[in-house]
Amino acid sequence: MTAAPEIKIIGFDADDTLWDNEPYYRSLEDVFCEVMKDILPPEESSKELYKTEVSNLPLYGYGSKAYTLSILETALRLSREQLPAASIARILKAGKQLSDSPLKLLDHVETVLQNLAPYYKLIVVTKGDLIDQERKLKKSRLERYFHHIEIMSDKQPGDYEKLFRHLDIRPEEFLMVGNSLRSDILPVVELGGYAVHIPYHTTWLHEKVGDIQLPAERFREIASILKLLDECPWIKLKP
Amino acid sequence: MTAAPEIKIIGFDADDTLWDNEPYYRSLEDVFCEVMKDILPPEESSKELYKTEVSNLPLYGYGSKAYTLSILETALRLSREQLPAASIARILKAGKQLSDSPLKLLDHVETVLQNLAPYYKLIVVTKGDLIDQERKLKKSRLERYFHHIEIMSDKQPGDYEKLFRHLDIRPEEFLMVGNSLRSDILPVVELGGYAVHIPYHTTWLHEKVGDIQLPAERFREIASILKLLDECPWIKLKP
Repeated sequence: MTAAPEIKIIGFDADDTLWDNEPYYRSLEDVFCEVMKDILPPEESSKELYKTEVSNLPLYGYGSKAYTLSILETALRLSREQLPAASIARILKAGKQLSDSPLKLLDHVETVLQNLAPYYKLIVVTKGDLIDQERKLKKSRLERYFHHIEIMSDKQPGDYEKLFRHLDIRPEEFLMVGNSLRSDILPVVELGGYAVHIPYHTTWLHEKVGDIQLPAERFREIASILKLLDECPWIKLKP
Repeated sequence: MTAAPEIKIIGFDADDTLWDNEPYYRSLEDVFCEVMKDILPPEESSKELYKTEVSNLPLYGYGSKAYTLSILETALRLSREQLPAASIARILKAGKQLSDSPLKLLDHVETVLQNLAPYYKLIVVTKGDLIDQERKLKKSRLERYFHHIEIMSDKQPGDYEKLFRHLDIRPEEFLMVGNSLRSDILPVVELGGYAVHIPYHTTWLHEKVGDIQLPAERFREIASILKLLDECPWIKLKP
């Protein structure tokens, strides 16, 4: 009935979509749980940390510095300010390593970008810490494929609306690719855009959502980014 | 000889140009010096902190979280990891207050923006922490005067070149207003743009530069932002 939609811009989430991220955060959490082990079992420490993180989100936002500060706050609270300074120093040092963790591209990412770049304007759409994300993009050596990088403080529908205005496009001209249903998929589909979900092997609790039903005309879930090239009917690689 | 330049976009630095910032950072530094006072005299503590800050800049960037982490690192180092956890907790809490410090506009800022907005596209050009700057802009209630906010990880000439490309203008169509010669004035004038310096009563050491001579055709120093309206020959308030 309606003409096939024409996608003009493809947005890629960065962390755990283009490169590994979550495992580095989990390593820092392990250091924290290890430091706390005489006070609380690891799963309890993790639970308390999660509470602190979520309550600090409006103030600190996302990223390695925010995460390190939330861990320190939780460690001091749980130890009733009795933690040895050496343990604090250990957390601080591991947090610094997180900020500068190595970058490992996920499989097939570069191939896919190479194939899409001639036909679409590609952008990175990420939330988090400005300097973290700029450093990772630089390390990734993927800058040349992207028109630019959009770093947002959050990925709520309102943030995507602002993005569409800024890009001067309609939602139906935009396709978002990412690993988080909550941040990359739901808000975009809700606004009338297209979205492709690529689950990552582990997901941060805060990004999890319950069972949802999304319209097949505007949503796909694929197992590997490589499938973007042949399992998404809206992506066309011929002029 | 040449036609009068026509400025299309005016960029405003934010911290200590539109609103107070440095005093809140100095308050946190006072807490740090107070905590360290049995180990080092305040001026020595400040010197050590500055060293840590500058060495962490490439990793942490600017902003309240970066500053808090650098203070904690310095405090642990200077105390040889002997600082009581209660002192760490005190720094962490004061750092959190810094992230959420009240916002006080500088005198005449709103009047000036009101007068300029009908004739120029106004933008905020700030370096620092994404969530810090978005929160401050929201608290300032100045959003309506600005086309958008550009948050950069640094303000080197290369960062301004990227800005000009992104805004699709030539340097001579851009005027920058700010309190930092190093970040707001020198790189813009160097690239061929216009710049107006409004000194703030206190300047962070890192932003200080030696004696410099700037061309009067493209540079002014004014004592108050109000003078933008009548002491800058390139700004014209009639159509």
